[in-house]
Amino acid sequence: MTALSPTLALACDLISRPSVTPADEGCQELMTRRLSDIGFKVESMRIEEVDNFWALRGHSTGPVLCFAGHTDVVPTGPLQAWQHKPFDALVDEQGMLCGRGAADMKGSLASMIIAVERFVADHPQHKGAIAFLITSDEEGPAHHGTKAVVERLSKRGERMDWCIVGEPSSTSLVGDVVKNGRRGSLGCTLTVRGVQGHVAYPHLAKNPIHLATPALAELADTHWDDGNDFFPPTSFQISNLNSGTGATNVVPGELTSIFNFRFSTESTVEQLQQRVCEILDKHGLDYHLEWALSGLPFLTEPGVLLDAISDSIRSVTGRETKPSTSGGTSDGRFIATMGAQVVELGPVNATIHQVNERVLASDLDVLTDIYYQTMVNLLT
Amino acid sequence: MTALSPTLALACDLISRPSVTPADEGCQELMTRRLSDIGFKVESMRIEEVDNFWALRGHSTGPVLCFAGHTDVVPTGPLQAWQHKPFDALVDEQGMLCGRGAADMKGSLASMIIAVERFVADHPQHKGAIAFLITSDEEGPAHHGTKAVVERLSKRGERMDWCIVGEPSSTSLVGDVVKNGRRGSLGCTLTVRGVQGHVAYPHLAKNPIHLATPALAELADTHWDDGNDFFPPTSFQISNLNSGTGATNVVPGELTSIFNFRFSTESTVEQLQQRVCEILDKHGLDYHLEWALSGLPFLTEPGVLLDAISDSIRSVTGRETKPSTSGGTSDGRFIATMGAQVVELGPVNATIHQVNERVLASDLDVLTDIYYQTMVNLLT
Repeated sequence: MTALSPTLALACDLISRPSVTPADEGCQELMTRRLSDIGFKVESMRIEEVDNFWALRGHSTGPVLCFAGHTDVVPTGPLQAWQHKPFDALVDEQGMLCGRGAADMKGSLASMIIAVERFVADHPQHKGAIAFLITSDEEGPAHHGTKAVVERLSKRGERMDWCIVGEPSSTSLVGDVVKNGRRGSLGCTLTVRGVQGHVAYPHLAKNPIHLATPALAELADTHWDDGNDFFPPTSFQISNLNSGTGATNVVPGELTSIFNFRFSTESTVEQLQQRVCEILDKHGLDYHLEWALSGLPFLTEPGVLLDAISDSIRSVTGRETKPSTSGGTSDGRFIATMGAQVVELGPVNATIHQVNERVLASDLDVLTDIYYQTMVNLLT
Repeated sequence: MTALSPTLALACDLISRPSVTPADEGCQELMTRRLSDIGFKVESMRIEEVDNFWALRGHSTGPVLCFAGHTDVVPTGPLQAWQHKPFDALVDEQGMLCGRGAADMKGSLASMIIAVERFVADHPQHKGAIAFLITSDEEGPAHHGTKAVVERLSKRGERMDWCIVGEPSSTSLVGDVVKNGRRGSLGCTLTVRGVQGHVAYPHLAKNPIHLATPALAELADTHWDDGNDFFPPTSFQISNLNSGTGATNVVPGELTSIFNFRFSTESTVEQLQQRVCEILDKHGLDYHLEWALSGLPFLTEPGVLLDAISDSIRSVTGRETKPSTSGGTSDGRFIATMGAQVVELGPVNATIHQVNERVLASDLDVLTDIYYQTMVNLLT
């Protein structure tokens, strides 16, 4: 076996640390040591049970380019289903780097570090500043991770112009897709009240299942908006629906449902909430709603950052990248609140969160080159 | 306190035995001893954990009139909610016989025994035969109770013309209502299959909640039949509806629902099943149905038995009784399969299955007289 590239060697080192959320297992120390060595000022921010750090090199009076990401990984799932042990990183015979976090997102973290080391060596007097914002709670509740760090940075007036989040954005080949925004996520728990009774005496009961199903069917069938050039139409999904005592002869007294909107910038939270209430009211339901806003939609329109990244991908790989706002939420939603342009750029996401998570090893070296060239485009 | 009537004394003796399903606690022995004393041939049929007995006096070549009922009672519920201990039977200051089973149906059993003792004393050479079919599993699963006894009796060719079930049929005054039939009960567990996925990628999933709710709404809104002179329209109730993994961001892969028909003689089991399938098919569902027929509807049309009972109630109380088929299932559905006319006649059911179950004590003496007079009408 040939020697690993610096990016792959660092990726393996990171993967070997079983940092299941919110554990960090020394990943951040490994990163901050290397960043300190090349002149970064590192600020650790442990918030409750979560390790985070913020690091800066250069002059924040000029433009600030931040690399963001997370050292935590999702649980392994059943160990016997893994071909190789999930925390014993290795490059297999097909040239795949295997292990939990290979794609999401320790591979990206390694590429970032190596790219920045090279860039600083080549351009010690770069323009502006390079920053890192790293958390160990992206896959979990995400309360004490990026969100809390951004709040602290904003409070003290820290600026950020551009942010590259290392989330695995690519579909088939590294760089084929970048994410220039994400839909918003709005959840809700709906409780519909009826009157419990005996199935043999339905006139003495009010069956919340019978009352609620037409309303739920209408919610599921509603067209919320058309989306726009950047976002698909807002989608509505019921994830949980429960009613009944277990007994077959009892009409239940209550129904509970959990639903979720992934919404475009064409709908506001208030509009969606109002339309849900209108539908429930129209069906005459006695109901209660408990809303939970997970994130507002954000969008980085074509401009300096997206151009720099697209150019870099084209020059390194020859590919035209496709900006997209599809997929789940990421910490980009929090960083966008600092006013930064935010783009997610990372390796292929085909195996994330699955057993046998893996990524083409050579893609990580390509990713290092893309990150490097983006810095050249923006900071020289 | 004045001495208790023979009916009330026997009712108290039965109530004092805590025969919660399937326990009998000696109730049947108490009954069979008295029946043996007046010439009944008693046959105990313990089936699995359930005590049952069949007793016959007379010539089964002539008409056979059977008294049917159960010695088991439902659990007491919270003891502290009872004004008097549930198994310490007593007649309170309002003249109410209090205790678990007073109304459902140890009071009826006592009235039957006393009525038959008197009738046999007065008419030792009565026509035909008098029978008793008693179980200790009416309130429970009812697999090894009346159903199993009826199967044995049918297999050996035992005949029955008329059956009086002692279920508490009355609404305000003893004898104001008798039940001359019951609706059928048809249950079903519906499973709707979808494809599990992430709420952010609904196009990769098939949400069984979204697929099923329009169909469930249509089922709940369907008019199944108009009923007829004897039965209210068939009713449909969904008792349980469950889908979802608990996670708020996962589209579930499956939905389960339990529903129940209480059906009139205007619909057959096959018709109801076919119409459910038509509705589910129309909505394009991938589904599985697990049907459970609890009981076919039965009906005793006006005729010899109903006339004899109505006449008896009129002559004892001056009341015109009202035949009804409303309410839950009873063991009458099993006995009807023997080809017998079946009528339920018992005390007021206002407090059955509740704490502080009670019945007007004097009503049980009236009930004894009604049973007696019915025998006079049928067997002399």
